Amino acid sequence: MGHERVQRRGRRRGAAISEAAVLPQPDFKQLRRPYRPVPLVSEDQVDAIHNASLKLLAETGIEVLLDEAREIMAKAGADVRDGETRVRFDPSLIEELIAKAPSEFELHARNPKHTIKFGGDSVAFGMMASAPNCSDIDNGRRTGNQKDYRNFLRLSQMHNVLHFNGGYPVEPVDIHASIRHLDCISDLITLTDKTYCIYALGRDRVADAIEMTRIAHGLTMEEMQDKACMFSIINTNSPLQLDKPMMEGVIALAEMGQPVVITPFTLAGAMAPVTIAGALVLQNAEALAGIAFAQMVRPGTPVIYGGFTSNVDMKSGAPAFGTPEYMKAQHVGGQLARRYGLPYRSSNVCAANTVDSQAAYEAVFSLWGAINGGMNMLMHGAGWLEGGLCCSYEKTIMDIDLLQMVSEFLQPLSTSDDDLALDAINDVGPAGHFFGTEHTQERYRDAFYSPILSDWRNFETWDEAGSPIAIERANRVWKERLAQYQEPPLDMAIRDELMAFVAKRKEQGGAKTDF
Amino acid sequence: MGHERVQRRGRRRGAAISEAAVLPQPDFKQLRRPYRPVPLVSEDQVDAIHNASLKLLAETGIEVLLDEAREIMAKAGADVRDGETRVRFDPSLIEELIAKAPSEFELHARNPKHTIKFGGDSVAFGMMASAPNCSDIDNGRRTGNQKDYRNFLRLSQMHNVLHFNGGYPVEPVDIHASIRHLDCISDLITLTDKTYCIYALGRDRVADAIEMTRIAHGLTMEEMQDKACMFSIINTNSPLQLDKPMMEGVIALAEMGQPVVITPFTLAGAMAPVTIAGALVLQNAEALAGIAFAQMVRPGTPVIYGGFTSNVDMKSGAPAFGTPEYMKAQHVGGQLARRYGLPYRSSNVCAANTVDSQAAYEAVFSLWGAINGGMNMLMHGAGWLEGGLCCSYEKTIMDIDLLQMVSEFLQPLSTSDDDLALDAINDVGPAGHFFGTEHTQERYRDAFYSPILSDWRNFETWDEAGSPIAIERANRVWKERLAQYQEPPLDMAIRDELMAFVAKRKEQGGAKTDF
Repeated sequence: MGHERVQRRGRRRGAAISEAAVLPQPDFKQLRRPYRPVPLVSEDQVDAIHNASLKLLAETGIEVLLDEAREIMAKAGADVRDGETRVRFDPSLIEELIAKAPSEFELHARNPKHTIKFGGDSVAFGMMASAPNCSDIDNGRRTGNQKDYRNFLRLSQMHNVLHFNGGYPVEPVDIHASIRHLDCISDLITLTDKTYCIYALGRDRVADAIEMTRIAHGLTMEEMQDKACMFSIINTNSPLQLDKPMMEGVIALAEMGQPVVITPFTLAGAMAPVTIAGALVLQNAEALAGIAFAQMVRPGTPVIYGGFTSNVDMKSGAPAFGTPEYMKAQHVGGQLARRYGLPYRSSNVCAANTVDSQAAYEAVFSLWGAINGGMNMLMHGAGWLEGGLCCSYEKTIMDIDLLQMVSEFLQPLSTSDDDLALDAINDVGPAGHFFGTEHTQERYRDAFYSPILSDWRNFETWDEAGSPIAIERANRVWKERLAQYQEPPLDMAIRDELMAFVAKRKEQGGAKTDF
Repeated sequence: MGHERVQRRGRRRGAAISEAAVLPQPDFKQLRRPYRPVPLVSEDQVDAIHNASLKLLAETGIEVLLDEAREIMAKAGADVRDGETRVRFDPSLIEELIAKAPSEFELHARNPKHTIKFGGDSVAFGMMASAPNCSDIDNGRRTGNQKDYRNFLRLSQMHNVLHFNGGYPVEPVDIHASIRHLDCISDLITLTDKTYCIYALGRDRVADAIEMTRIAHGLTMEEMQDKACMFSIINTNSPLQLDKPMMEGVIALAEMGQPVVITPFTLAGAMAPVTIAGALVLQNAEALAGIAFAQMVRPGTPVIYGGFTSNVDMKSGAPAFGTPEYMKAQHVGGQLARRYGLPYRSSNVCAANTVDSQAAYEAVFSLWGAINGGMNMLMHGAGWLEGGLCCSYEKTIMDIDLLQMVSEFLQPLSTSDDDLALDAINDVGPAGHFFGTEHTQERYRDAFYSPILSDWRNFETWDEAGSPIAIERANRVWKERLAQYQEPPLDMAIRDELMAFVAKRKEQGGAKTDF
């Protein structure tokens, strides 16, 4: 196998990895926040949340439903009592374990140009994940299916501002659950060449994902252990429960050194206290328990601290996103992650049912909270509607535009003498105009971000054109763009090996569906 | 007059200044940014812009069209040459004069509860100003008129998140220009009890505004000199021109110690260099010249550093707002203002033609840039569409919702033991739910911001209700709210004096219209 691998690698390197040339795109680039994240609360307040979380883990403890996980925890020094699923952790044990996680790591894509960093001031955006439904304004809302799943992957691949795939943009329920992961990961590998999230639904599926990813990267198992090539989101069962398939997933991923993103879903007023501080205590306790567990399995496992605290509508119990409370939680979540020296995950979310102004303002508030809060990994970057129940084609385009604007905002502002433009100002002089000057003519093509959706025509021209609103423009754009999709190159031998593996696993019946 | 004033004051104090009780409103409160503004560029870069601006003022200079202004400048030590309108300033002269401006000041409203601070970490929001048109989705777009003007003032008065009136929300062109300021200021005083911007269109109008404001506050002229009760926006004529009516206005206002907000309108690629750094050099030079001039007229005159740098669409020349470039300029503008220890003005602006997702994302990007950038005074807080050419009823409601969300975000997050909720988490325990707990029941009413527009119903319920989008909900809301308007109390003697003054000035023919 080693010899074969080298050959494959050689071929892959030899193949021209051409960027799709049809759709003009900004370069794929690692983004960096040019300023320090915003501390919304004092260090003392961060300590108060930290201390309360550790007290919770020490005294109340957390339910761990998987026997194997409790055994690992007992061996690592946690307080595991016979016949009890409740596990308690000494504060110093948690702190020691958390310190073993790397503060930064690289996540490799099969196209090395699409490898990205997490941690420090790095920022990366991912496509939406895990919607049960999808929609566009031509055909309305429908249950997730493979055709739409693939289209969203294609849109994700085409847009360089999306750095990774956060999972299945929409759940293709027309594929049987036993083999869905095989087809979906196969598509993630062939339709895109960016890195991706796999679902940690039990050992079998994670083992398949590891093997498929190993094949895609042309690595041996030993090589992959030191190389993060995929990741998984681990949602705790708030409050205070770690369920079986997720813990099996953490074990399998950590053993292979693949990153886990521990994200409690702590909705204030529902699965968490009605106060944002209380919800953050719960979020932090659960995140620390999961992160500590990953370090017990394999010290040094790359982890990301995930924050997903929001509030519910107290009249209806409906989850709300992009609210002031969500933004506060994003900021303080980042402060906690930095206290532990861990990369931080946040999300671009909203509760709107269509791409109206509500969808936009909730999304931009989420982005503001994420950037200010020190987010390194943005999940659900493009497409999210309805609190996550729907991935929308039009929202995907709007979000790509929003992310491109944020990306442009994060680019350093040059203050070279040329940019300060004293000569140009002097040449134009009072009451002049800069439009026709050489200084302008030399720069105007790339001077400013050119938006996908924004309509800057004056009212009269816009009105005569039929008063198109943003969602209508987005509808036109996604269809035009999708038509230009080109599959990224993939070495034929890798493709064959991948397909053979998928065929074999399908023959074997895939994975259990009783999780 | 002094005796009369005291009597009036007594009566006004005696009168019950009741808040409109019909529409539930958050308290009128002075907002504070709980974190330091975000430095987007380094101190060295700020210095580079500062130095280039001073070089520009020293070498190229600025056109000053008003003879009296040039005389004041010459007397203060500027380089004014016979027969030339161009004035040049030594860098040290500018720095000395700028240092005379207060870093913080209070702006008094006739209702003392509505007095606000500018400077430091204070934040205040104003209603939109100066639109030539207005619109709602029932009756479409129309030229500004008194009926709509008054309605917007009423909406501004009713909503406590709007701290001041930024001018005329829409220009009532159905009132003759010679007397428009009399009717408009009269409405600002009677329909609202918040502080306001007056237009510095020559000496006559400013004198009328001062007299009307003096009457409204029940002050003597001497008392008003030490008390900022109104302000004016001074837009320079970019590039590098200070025109006559504006300079007359600065003189009249500074003599009375009333604040001037110097705001160059430096559109990169049009009236300013195509680079944001170059546009900021021009903005800074013009702002410093105006601010220095106000200090020449009367040292200690309260001033605000205004930033309005944005970019144009290089394809059409149309101004763009809420762009990444606008946000960068907002951040660096704030850094410059803080370098001089001056309060900072920014705006909530967009280029959208209707209240669609574009209007929302451009607005929230503007708000993000303003808050992060260290804005103290937000102009055009509610209503702005079409790059300022239209004030929209529906946008007014959406913006009020956005501002209330920002306001809620700025409120300190409590981490008291009660808020950390350890007992509540312990009581609920693993796999429990917080909805019915005592901790939740005691707090749920006020736990979270309750939005005006956001529709958080699930898709099915929303769909059955006819899929209302945000602009439709906003349309219903402004009509319901406007119907509940109550005029704020005003002492009868003050009202009489005000009306008598307006009648007298109208008899005299108002102000000249040849400015």
